[in-house]
Amino acid sequence: MPDVTNNERYQKGWATLSKINDKAGERILKLLEDVCPDMAKLVIEFPYGDIYSRPGLDLKTRELITIASLTTLGFAKDQLKAHVYNALNAGCSKEEIIEVIMQMSVYAGFPAALNGLFAVKEVLTEKGLLNK
Amino acid sequence: MPDVTNNERYQKGWATLSKINDKAGERILKLLEDVCPDMAKLVIEFPYGDIYSRPGLDLKTRELITIASLTTLGFAKDQLKAHVYNALNAGCSKEEIIEVIMQMSVYAGFPAALNGLFAVKEVLTEKGLLNK
Amino acid sequence: MPDVTNNERYQKGWATLSKINDKAGERILKLLEDVCPDMAKLVIEFPYGDIYSRPGLDLKTRELITIASLTTLGFAKDQLKAHVYNALNAGCSKEEIIEVIMQMSVYAGFPAALNGLFAVKEVLTEKGLLNK
Amino acid sequence: MPDVTNNERYQKGWATLSKINDKAGERILKLLEDVCPDMAKLVIEFPYGDIYSRPGLDLKTRELITIASLTTLGFAKDQLKAHVYNALNAGCSKEEIIEVIMQMSVYAGFPAALNGLFAVKEVLTEKGLLNK
Amino acid sequence: MPDVTNNERYQKGWATLSKINDKAGERILKLLEDVCPDMAKLVIEFPYGDIYSRPGLDLKTRELITIASLTTLGFAKDQLKAHVYNALNAGCSKEEIIEVIMQMSVYAGFPAALNGLFAVKEVLTEKGLLNK
Amino acid sequence: MPDVTNNERYQKGWATLSKINDKAGERILKLLEDVCPDMAKLVIEFPYGDIYSRPGLDLKTRELITIASLTTLGFAKDQLKAHVYNALNAGCSKEEIIEVIMQMSVYAGFPAALNGLFAVKEVLTEKGLLNK
Repeated sequence: MPDVTNNERYQKGWATLSKINDKAGERILKLLEDVCPDMAKLVIEFPYGDIYSRPGLDLKTRELITIASLTTLGFAKDQLKAHVYNALNAGCSKEEIIEVIMQMSVYAGFPAALNGLFAVKEVLTEKGLLNK
Repeated sequence: MPDVTNNERYQKGWATLSKINDKAGERILKLLEDVCPDMAKLVIEFPYGDIYSRPGLDLKTRELITIASLTTLGFAKDQLKAHVYNALNAGCSKEEIIEVIMQMSVYAGFPAALNGLFAVKEVLTEKGLLNK
Repeated sequence: MPDVTNNERYQKGWATLSKINDKAGERILKLLEDVCPDMAKLVIEFPYGDIYSRPGLDLKTRELITIASLTTLGFAKDQLKAHVYNALNAGCSKEEIIEVIMQMSVYAGFPAALNGLFAVKEVLTEKGLLNK
Repeated sequence: MPDVTNNERYQKGWATLSKINDKAGERILKLLEDVCPDMAKLVIEFPYGDIYSRPGLDLKTRELITIASLTTLGFAKDQLKAHVYNALNAGCSKEEIIEVIMQMSVYAGFPAALNGLFAVKEVLTEKGLLNK
Repeated sequence: MPDVTNNERYQKGWATLSKINDKAGERILKLLEDVCPDMAKLVIEFPYGDIYSRPGLDLKTRELITIASLTTLGFAKDQLKAHVYNALNAGCSKEEIIEVIMQMSVYAGFPAALNGLFAVKEVLTEKGLLNK
Repeated sequence: MPDVTNNERYQKGWATLSKINDKAGERILKLLEDVCPDMAKLVIEFPYGDIYSRPGLDLKTRELITIASLTTLGFAKDQLKAHVYNALNAGCSKEEIIEVIMQMSVYAGFPAALNGLFAVKEVLTEKGLLNK
């Protein structure tokens, strides 16, 4: 962990993110360290420290609504794949994740939903969880 | 109910929609009857007959992911208000609905999330559920 | 017509737009005259002078693909209503226009398609063309 | 064809899709068979069985408005390429397809239109139809 | 100011926002107080405390890029109007603001740019700054 | 330069674009020459001849608002990379470009902003400007 982190929100964010995915925090730091390390700090602090750490929803629901939002955006394939991993870690079944994305065909259209399912397929293949 | 409805999907969709909101079906028929009644039929059959009637997610979760998607789209205020009503009927608390929309600030940005909260505020005002 | 218009593209654009809707050009000039008259000039020159004046598609098809695009954007209700007027003037039937918007439910989702149909309904009401 | 298909809408959808592209149906089934075969069924039934099979527009116009919508979405390159194939099969000329996408520069902006043209270029290259 | 505000980021955010618009902070608190006061706190802390308070860009540039982004989103008229006010306060001329939005016709399309100009027109009318 | 270019707007656009990036014009002609050379002409004429050549904003500001818009669109990675090159040529520092994209996390959400930063990272790597 870098030395920018001696503040409560960062530590809370890091703890929450580590609970969901124990490698995600370091992956974000690594991806941004030579282009914009301040952004990595903001990602830990705002989404994970301020939002995901709130008590109002369980982590499983938080991951499912994130998958709904990322599928709707349409352009965020890498983030969608990361949150499919997180959702599986948070206790969502692959059937639930797929069901969320199917429902997005109603609101975001079929291309967004199909691309969402293809992203899930890549994750499930990487994890050896795809149906034979 | 119009006579186009003697098919299984329509009846299943109507039943599912009526469970969530017993006035929504007739409201959709009414809104579309003089411009495109076939679209009303498709709304009952596809989103409600084919998707919401599937067993993979409970109605509460289906409403929360819909609220996430509609907030992300940004332009669908009327549909968002309708689904806030539906979510309350499906057993979601107002706190959960608000929490879902707050989280959308991370993925869809603050303008989308703020407009989502203002839509919720209108519904809660209409239902007399707003905090004093 | 303002005096900025003594160039070929503007005159071609004005002629093309006038063929579709003989009041649209002056309406655009009027709407923008005190905030950004240069933009009105660009609207006549680029979309109508450069694009709609090209020979590759008939005006009817141009209006239908515009309606598809505006429905997909979701946030452009005023422009969609204007192009529903234009499409009717260009010889599209109201049934064709409605059919285009229904198909958008597949690609842009149901909220975008429904809002598109409600925009058509407003135009048909204004023109006294709605089904009794 | 899987055994889920003994219903009228699926068969109508399959027939309509086969008329446009005799390999598209099996390609969709294949892509989704191990992640979400129910979604493949919905793709055949709703877009092709319910929408494209309607009489109100000819297939050529249906493909052109789809290309307009997919170009506008901006993120749906694979679907856009597939519909460029379909549009050519449905009797659209490559000039018409290109003209539709050019017009999208007005409504969806130049980046969306340029990416649409690059997708067309890939299809025309694959089919040996690109200008020398 | 509410009592949730005894933290450095909130105070920095409030100070930055007050410099841009001395009524905006209280307006946000008021709009959200009965539906989601925590969101008002996040708006002060994250956009204004974490982002606008950073040294890397002057406030004038920050407001112009915000106007570019909000025009591109298309659905955020109220936020766009608020930032037109803020941009004028931060020292942008109305000509610069209009020029930014005109340029968005290239990237976000003409409907987004035109709606942006109509939002500016409303602000300029309210402030008595519109050309006669 | 092709022979379609003996008009004032094309020449003004080519001059403006060459000032920003002396290879961009030929790259656009090359990319589009066998699929849609008319579109290359429009790109030179409208964005560069009509918009970027206007006096109201300096080139540096024009590039920064373009980066804001392209980051917000989310799907325009190639255009974003091209404009990061252009912005560096127009005198923007890499710190300013990164700061613009960070601010987009507020309006377009974190996935759009993160993808924007990854695009910048690719450009900086290609130019050997990334922090060690």
